[in-house]
This record gives sequence, C-alpha cells and structure tokens, in this order.
Amino acid sequence: MYYGGIEAGGTKFVCAVSDQSFKIIERVSIPTSTPDETLKQVFAFFDQYQLKAIGIGSFGPIDVNVDSDTYGYVTSTPKKGWNNYNFVGAIKGRYDVPVAWTTDVNAAAYGEYRKGEAQLSNSCIYLTIGTGIGGGAILNGEIIDGFGHPEMGHISVPNHPNDPFEGVCPYHGNCLEGLAAGPAIEKRLQKKAQDLDKTDDFWEIEAYYIAQALVNYTMILRPEVLILGGGVMKQEQLFPLIRKAFKEIMNDYVVTPDLETYIVSPGLVDDAGITGSLLLAAEKAI
Amino acid sequence: MYYGGIEAGGTKFVCAVSDQSFKIIERVSIPTSTPDETLKQVFAFFDQYQLKAIGIGSFGPIDVNVDSDTYGYVTSTPKKGWNNYNFVGAIKGRYDVPVAWTTDVNAAAYGEYRKGEAQLSNSCIYLTIGTGIGGGAILNGEIIDGFGHPEMGHISVPNHPNDPFEGVCPYHGNCLEGLAAGPAIEKRLQKKAQDLDKTDDFWEIEAYYIAQALVNYTMILRPEVLILGGGVMKQEQLFPLIRKAFKEIMNDYVVTPDLETYIVSPGLVDDAGITGSLLLAAEKAI
Repeated sequence: MYYGGIEAGGTKFVCAVSDQSFKIIERVSIPTSTPDETLKQVFAFFDQYQLKAIGIGSFGPIDVNVDSDTYGYVTSTPKKGWNNYNFVGAIKGRYDVPVAWTTDVNAAAYGEYRKGEAQLSNSCIYLTIGTGIGGGAILNGEIIDGFGHPEMGHISVPNHPNDPFEGVCPYHGNCLEGLAAGPAIEKRLQKKAQDLDKTDDFWEIEAYYIAQALVNYTMILRPEVLILGGGVMKQEQLFPLIRKAFKEIMNDYVVTPDLETYIVSPGLVDDAGITGSLLLAAEKAI
Repeated sequence: MYYGGIEAGGTKFVCAVSDQSFKIIERVSIPTSTPDETLKQVFAFFDQYQLKAIGIGSFGPIDVNVDSDTYGYVTSTPKKGWNNYNFVGAIKGRYDVPVAWTTDVNAAAYGEYRKGEAQLSNSCIYLTIGTGIGGGAILNGEIIDGFGHPEMGHISVPNHPNDPFEGVCPYHGNCLEGLAAGPAIEKRLQKKAQDLDKTDDFWEIEAYYIAQALVNYTMILRPEVLILGGGVMKQEQLFPLIRKAFKEIMNDYVVTPDLETYIVSPGLVDDAGITGSLLLAAEKAI
C-alpha cells in the first residue's frame, strides 16, 4: 500500500508515491497545461500503484470549506481550463480512496512541521516568495483555515521610505505581493531577481518588505518558526538582511526564538510541498 | 459550586461569580492599584463563595507559555508593582482550584465565541480599540497562542495618504496602535475621541487604519467574525466607515461573510471579557 502526493503548481505538477514511512518510491514532474491533459499524465503515473490515499497541495485560490458545494474546486484563476474546476472530484472519479485537499503552501507548511525545520515545534508559517507570495500556517498541529484558506501575500505593508513603487497587484496595487514578489522586482528594476547583483542596494528594500510581513505574522500568530521558500528566497543574501530588518522593526516588543532559528529556509529544501501532500494523504487515510 | 472570573484591566478589575449555567450571581469592580491592594479586595469578594475554578483574562503582556518558569506572570509593564508579578501564583496561593489564564482580549474573544456574536461560528477575532489596541483570536474553538499571545495592535499598516502623523507607539511609532488608539487620536487632534464631532472627517482616517488591520487579519486567519470593542468603538459612526474602507481595500479578493455580519460590535456589549473568563474557568474545571 502506498500514499500518493500531488504538488499542483501553476507551472508544473509534481506527483510522488511513497511507502508508509514516507520514503518517496517514485516521482514525476508534469507541465501544467489544461486539466484534461495534465490529469491524463497524473493518472498514467498513479495507475501503476495501489494507493491508500492521495494528498493534494494545490495552487489557488481553491475552495477548502467542507460545507461548500464547490469544496475541492480550484475557484477563480486566469489559468486556462482550471477556473471553477472540480479537482478533487476528478481525482476521486479515478481513485476510490480518501483525498486530502489543501493549498500548496499549507501542504509545504505541514511538511516542514512534520519533517522539516519545524519538526520540534508546535507551530510554523511557510511563506513562498516567487511569482506570487503565499503562506500557510500550522498551529498545534492543525492547518489554519477559517472561512477559507489564508492569502498571506495580500496583506497591506507600508512602502519603504526610499521606494515610491506603486506595486503591481491587480487587486491591491502595493500590497506585499504587489511590492515584493518576482514580477514586482522585475517591473521596478527591469531585471529579474536572479540577474541582480547580490550586493545591489535593492535587496535591503526587498528584505524590508518581507520583514514587515514577518513582524505582522508574528504579532498576529506568534508562530515558533518562519520558513521562507520560493524562487526569490534562493537569493540567500536576503536572510541576514531580513533578520536585521525584523529586529529593527520589532524593536524587542515581543519575544521570539533566536532569529537565526526563527527565520529560516525550508529544511526539506524543494520537497516541503510534496512531503506535506504525502503526509496529509496518510492523515486522511486514518 | 460556583465559577469565578477576573477581567483584570489596567484601570479596573471586574470580578464575578457565576453558577454553572454562567448566570452572574454577583460582580464587583475594583480600581487597579498595586497588586497587594487590588488582590486584597479580590480575595474579600471571592472568599464569600465556594469556587470550583477561576478564569483570568489579564492586561498584558503576560506569560502564557505553560513550559515557562514565569507562566502566570504579568511580564514587562510600566504599571507600578505589576512588572514581573506572579498573578496566577497569588490566586492559587489563596484558592486551591484550577486557574485558567489568558489575556483580556483572548477572554473576550472566547466569550463572544461561546455566547456572543460568534456563537454560531467556528472562529472569530475580538479587537479592542481604546487606550491601546489588542486582539485575540479563536479558531476551531481554540485560543490562538503560539510562542506567546498575539499583539495584534502592533502590526505595520500604511499611513493614510492624507495623514502624515508619525504615530505615538514608543516601540514602533506608526504601527496600528501608534496611529489609531485613543492616545494617537488625542495627540493628533488635541481632543479626545469622544469630544470629536461624529461627522468629523477624521473618522474616515480612523476607519481606514482599522480596515487595513481587519484586511490583514482576514488575509492571515480568515476568521468568520470580526468583533470590535473598546472605548473608541463606542463611536458607532465608525462601523459603516470601516465596512466601506474594508470593501475598497479588499477589492473582492477573498470571500468573507456579508460585511454587516462580519464586522460587528460585541454581542455581549461590555461583558465579553468577564463572560469569557467564567467560561474559561469552567473549561479548566473539567
């Protein structure tokens, strides 16, 4: 008996099968195209195995409200064919097994909580900073979902005093994502983040925005670990700059763990999401 | 057998005794002076009853970490005699009963969750806006406490375009509390909130700050109800202004309950905190 995991991203799907100790037996990466084309390949992969349960960490927004008629759907997305798509329904139509369903970042947070940087803690936030910004939180072993899943990238943060940029979020202009995600960096500087010099002054501005967000998350949730992943965070020079800005903004107001262990990169590196999906499959199978 | 509740505020303590259906039998209000003087009156009140458990919702910051050596203490406060004061220890020294211990706003959130505006919901936030700003959150019936209790009033929010005010928070300057609590209003306008005309243009600025905060809480926690209490919120003209600003800032990005039922005043009016303290006493007694 195996567990199946799907890390469903906007660009690619990572599918994996693990044994009951969560060792990955096989994995495959599938480009995200239309639902039909993508799922054809997902099915071809999973059909090889006798699965006990499947866990999905999906790009969003998605409906995670179990009382809703559209639970299990990807909701409003510009991605062709996926708008209002019954993802869980399609998987359940093929495999008669329990299906765990959450966001990609919630799955990553859960992976880090159980097997990564937060495995000795009761709580964590996983924030991805890449094409967009999104976050998931675990508190006392539970994924935080209220009326829906969080959209932590769309909080309001003040502009840096030396950054008049008006932001690129089509909904909120200069929300966190509008100011600090990859497309905001590119629009502002006419360069991709990875092409920017690692000593460029801009990184202090980027770190300031991320630190503001981390201070806000800390004030609201008081998590034990803040895990930062995603493409932009491959710029490792950001970590000391973020810790420095966090310390300045927080100004010792509330106690946090030592910042070296509080603000960290994912212990599972790029496998937080798929690992979390497999772990959630196992939870669902109980 | 009775439950005892203490709503320990910076200005006054409200103590109450209820029966097992949480009907308040007797209550007393005691001015907050030194711990010795205040607790002498608290003891005189509770000594009259055979208590099964006591719940405390305290002004903060307080230590709520059960693994900490200073669990049950009021920590760093300028209030005379209360700095590093073992509050739970003093109560337990007098009464050999279980003692529930949380912040005043967590207790108020719990009161509203069980008996007030959120009694039909799984989650809520209670925010008080008065001399300071503080918030407590309930998710799936549990008070949100991670590494410590939240300090929701100290999040960063952008200044209103027409409000250059630099804020009064001694730690963060223009954080939410620094911009929007009572002392910030008074410093900015040289008038107390209650002396300001109800049609003054300033209320739109005040509503804008509160709405920014509510949008941030929504993006991070997705609660089902946002309950606004405290002295400043006695200005009822704020509610429609806050809902309007919330709608504009959120810009339909995530689904919320209808704003008339989402952003509300406390169903228990001024009794949210003491009711929550009594309910938490009962939880502790189980």
